[in-house]
Amino acid sequence: MESIFVPMPRGGKQGVLALDRYWYAACASSELKRNKVVARTVLGLPLALFRNAVGGVGAMLDRCPHRNVPLSAGRVVGDNLECAYHGWQFDRLGTCRRVPGHCGDHEHPSRDATSLPVIEQDGFVWVWPRPDEEPAGEPFRLRGQLPGYTTVHRSVLFPGTVHQAIENALDVPHTAFLHRGLFRGTGKTNRIKAVITRSDSMVQAEYIGEPRPEGLAARILAPGGGTVQHWDRFHMPCVAEVEYRLGDDSHFIVTSLMTPEQDFVTRAHAVVSFKLPLPGWLVRPLIFPIAMQVFKQDAVILGKQTEVVRQFGGERFVSTEIDLLGGQIWRLMRRGAKGRAGSEMEPDEDYRAEVDLQV
Amino acid sequence: MESIFVPMPRGGKQGVLALDRYWYAACASSELKRNKVVARTVLGLPLALFRNAVGGVGAMLDRCPHRNVPLSAGRVVGDNLECAYHGWQFDRLGTCRRVPGHCGDHEHPSRDATSLPVIEQDGFVWVWPRPDEEPAGEPFRLRGQLPGYTTVHRSVLFPGTVHQAIENALDVPHTAFLHRGLFRGTGKTNRIKAVITRSDSMVQAEYIGEPRPEGLAARILAPGGGTVQHWDRFHMPCVAEVEYRLGDDSHFIVTSLMTPEQDFVTRAHAVVSFKLPLPGWLVRPLIFPIAMQVFKQDAVILGKQTEVVRQFGGERFVSTEIDLLGGQIWRLMRRGAKGRAGSEMEPDEDYRAEVDLQV
Amino acid sequence: MESIFVPMPRGGKQGVLALDRYWYAACASSELKRNKVVARTVLGLPLALFRNAVGGVGAMLDRCPHRNVPLSAGRVVGDNLECAYHGWQFDRLGTCRRVPGHCGDHEHPSRDATSLPVIEQDGFVWVWPRPDEEPAGEPFRLRGQLPGYTTVHRSVLFPGTVHQAIENALDVPHTAFLHRGLFRGTGKTNRIKAVITRSDSMVQAEYIGEPRPEGLAARILAPGGGTVQHWDRFHMPCVAEVEYRLGDDSHFIVTSLMTPEQDFVTRAHAVVSFKLPLPGWLVRPLIFPIAMQVFKQDAVILGKQTEVVRQFGGERFVSTEIDLLGGQIWRLMRRGAKGRAGSEMEPDEDYRAEVDLQV
Repeated sequence: MESIFVPMPRGGKQGVLALDRYWYAACASSELKRNKVVARTVLGLPLALFRNAVGGVGAMLDRCPHRNVPLSAGRVVGDNLECAYHGWQFDRLGTCRRVPGHCGDHEHPSRDATSLPVIEQDGFVWVWPRPDEEPAGEPFRLRGQLPGYTTVHRSVLFPGTVHQAIENALDVPHTAFLHRGLFRGTGKTNRIKAVITRSDSMVQAEYIGEPRPEGLAARILAPGGGTVQHWDRFHMPCVAEVEYRLGDDSHFIVTSLMTPEQDFVTRAHAVVSFKLPLPGWLVRPLIFPIAMQVFKQDAVILGKQTEVVRQFGGERFVSTEIDLLGGQIWRLMRRGAKGRAGSEMEPDEDYRAEVDLQV
Repeated sequence: MESIFVPMPRGGKQGVLALDRYWYAACASSELKRNKVVARTVLGLPLALFRNAVGGVGAMLDRCPHRNVPLSAGRVVGDNLECAYHGWQFDRLGTCRRVPGHCGDHEHPSRDATSLPVIEQDGFVWVWPRPDEEPAGEPFRLRGQLPGYTTVHRSVLFPGTVHQAIENALDVPHTAFLHRGLFRGTGKTNRIKAVITRSDSMVQAEYIGEPRPEGLAARILAPGGGTVQHWDRFHMPCVAEVEYRLGDDSHFIVTSLMTPEQDFVTRAHAVVSFKLPLPGWLVRPLIFPIAMQVFKQDAVILGKQTEVVRQFGGERFVSTEIDLLGGQIWRLMRRGAKGRAGSEMEPDEDYRAEVDLQV
Repeated sequence: MESIFVPMPRGGKQGVLALDRYWYAACASSELKRNKVVARTVLGLPLALFRNAVGGVGAMLDRCPHRNVPLSAGRVVGDNLECAYHGWQFDRLGTCRRVPGHCGDHEHPSRDATSLPVIEQDGFVWVWPRPDEEPAGEPFRLRGQLPGYTTVHRSVLFPGTVHQAIENALDVPHTAFLHRGLFRGTGKTNRIKAVITRSDSMVQAEYIGEPRPEGLAARILAPGGGTVQHWDRFHMPCVAEVEYRLGDDSHFIVTSLMTPEQDFVTRAHAVVSFKLPLPGWLVRPLIFPIAMQVFKQDAVILGKQTEVVRQFGGERFVSTEIDLLGGQIWRLMRRGAKGRAGSEMEPDEDYRAEVDLQV
């Protein structure tokens, strides 16, 4: 039996892309209290996350090297995570620190648990899902957590791929149909323009000339009406960012960190930051039930979509011009899965497209 | 991404035959009311069936071409079926008629849903499970729906293959054992003769010399006794027909349309037509509970049979002479799955076999 | 269709060994009352076990040769097991004895059910899981069922491989940790010595110098203290034997017959035989709840271990010197799965190892 075994992150089934050389938000910092262990899955890898008595965070493959019991079934003892079966202990780098009953030296590389690179940043515990290599780059930095802003965090599971969840989060037309009345989709439609630009790790749609939508949430956020500024952005490989501005007083950013747990299970960590003329304590109870209803409608439709995608053996999407970002997101993800495709592609910075749509 | 994708009907696993060039009854006409959508599966193909506002019926692969959400999750709007995610609309031939938010021309072949050939006949909606080809021939025509006859329709799911369900429906010996007392299997046994004849799409067993059985249902149907005429017939690929006559006054036909939903899930649409000395309104409440008990006993035993067939990797049946039709059914189905085998086979019309059995 | 079909016992997935040329305890004799049928699975083979009216025991593949319905769904009629679908009957060697409705001779080899070699011994019904060959050797003989001894039998299902369950049953260190307080693991630890010896079908660990443990069960069994004699033994391919002696008055043997039902489902038949200064009727109600708690803790941890082993594609165990028997068990099982490896291996009888551990 080999002493160390490093599985590869899963993916690639039924056309699902495995983007395994990126940082992912495994859990919120607030979920991982002192002396607490949390079990999470990232790209099919079962992980035991723990915070020791002095606040340090460890991320390990959720398997004791001794008898393969999940480390997340154990408990934190001082600096270490202790396995529930024989009591072996590991520090947050995975080093074996104790073997009960053993008379000799406890430490030996073959006895170590497999730890993953881990960074705590912007309220999240980020992991690099390849235990065998040095991470490249840094986790995504969240915007909008500024003085005078209210920030709320919620986490939901979507029964679909990261690609499905990201496109859903950044798709405007479905908001007027699936979520009709909650944000858009009441009253008359307006013809507006969208401008798409991109870099090698991001794509953005800017919407120009949209009057304040007539839906319930929009009326609460901007009772005075006016014209909104609106940007939807995808940041590789897993961030959807939606930003609204109305004059100088109203600013609203929803950042969704999408973490692929399994091929068709995505955990969305949504961070909502806003500055509004109304005080935050007043806005939250008004906006929250609406936001949760939107999430629920999206989760139901993504679940149905996933069922069909699996039955038919993969996504087969047909798009029109008003599916502004879907193809762009897929293009960046596919490039990320393959490594950069090289010089024959159109430079990202020169790209600019304009599309008319009715909302 | 391709704009149109036509999956092949499933089958062929663990020896299950996929007879995909035949018409199948997807649902009863009465199940598909105006402005109604019904989700059904035929040969592993998920279908959305709908009847529009003017009564027309459409049968589509249950997948929106746009974002692959099941069309059966949508609703009927006028002539069209509307997808629940973005509101795309399709007429009953699958043509895309509306793309909300889109400013240009809505119609484009790549945006069409995939429709199947569909015929409404004899109270059923029949589909041809290959979207990519012209259907051959016509659906089976039901007999017995004549003036003076009472007709009842019921639908049940059997946990087994079409072959298992058909053989069960046409097998006489188990009626005296599994359903003992309900129809046969009480009192003394009688030695009777069965004559088997066949054509290239049908096989029939005619039973000669059977006195009216002593079971409860038989006593209700023919209280005066006498000798029954009895035929069991299999019509390719999915119809079991059981016919009884007792003199000129009593005539009883059970036609079971077996639709393969999955390899081991068969939907049986049973149509019972009868003319009896007793009035229909009197016969129904007496016969119905017995018929449902027979169906239930059969469904339980087929479920157990299926479990074994799957555990052991396929059907391994041993037969005796009194398994009159099982081998004949299998022979026709296998020939239908392969295409006609040709001249080396014994001509169907010359075939005739006589078997003695005790019932 | 072939008339006889003999499936191979399963195993070999994810590194699970299939030791299919050994006797296994399919059920306890007490579970198989007269005129009773019991369904059990051994090495993935579904079996129908039955005891006929005169006490004879039959073990058959759980599939009627006629239409593949499970024979365990039937009932015992006199000497025979009767199928529930058409009433075919088979004696305990599988010979077909009756075909209802059939006018000719019932007996024909193609109509026989497939029987397995079966021996009833020491209170268990043992089967040889290959219907197609002569068994070699005899079932394991249980020790300790002697005059003056109390014997108790219990059966539990473990969600893991036989290898996991055997190692767990014979592993000392986890008793001080997982079962802390119930047997060991209270008060100060003691340094003791273990001596490992082996034959070609067995390996034994003898523990020398252990004072009577301080846990609850140990105090009940030996209230006077003293030094215990303790042996743990693995007998190929599926028996774990734990034996304790304290002077001449106290003797305690737990024999666990582990039967592989599926790759990751093991049925443990535990037989506890003991002679103690306290009377059996007094010991049983004290010891029993503790023993069941130990079993439950083990079942929970084995279930978690199995989940990880399956997620990661097989067992990857790291051992230290105090994992006394795990590697030895694996070595014998692997040799049994491959057939004897031959002369290049160290002779079993010359092997002797001494290990210090703290308990």
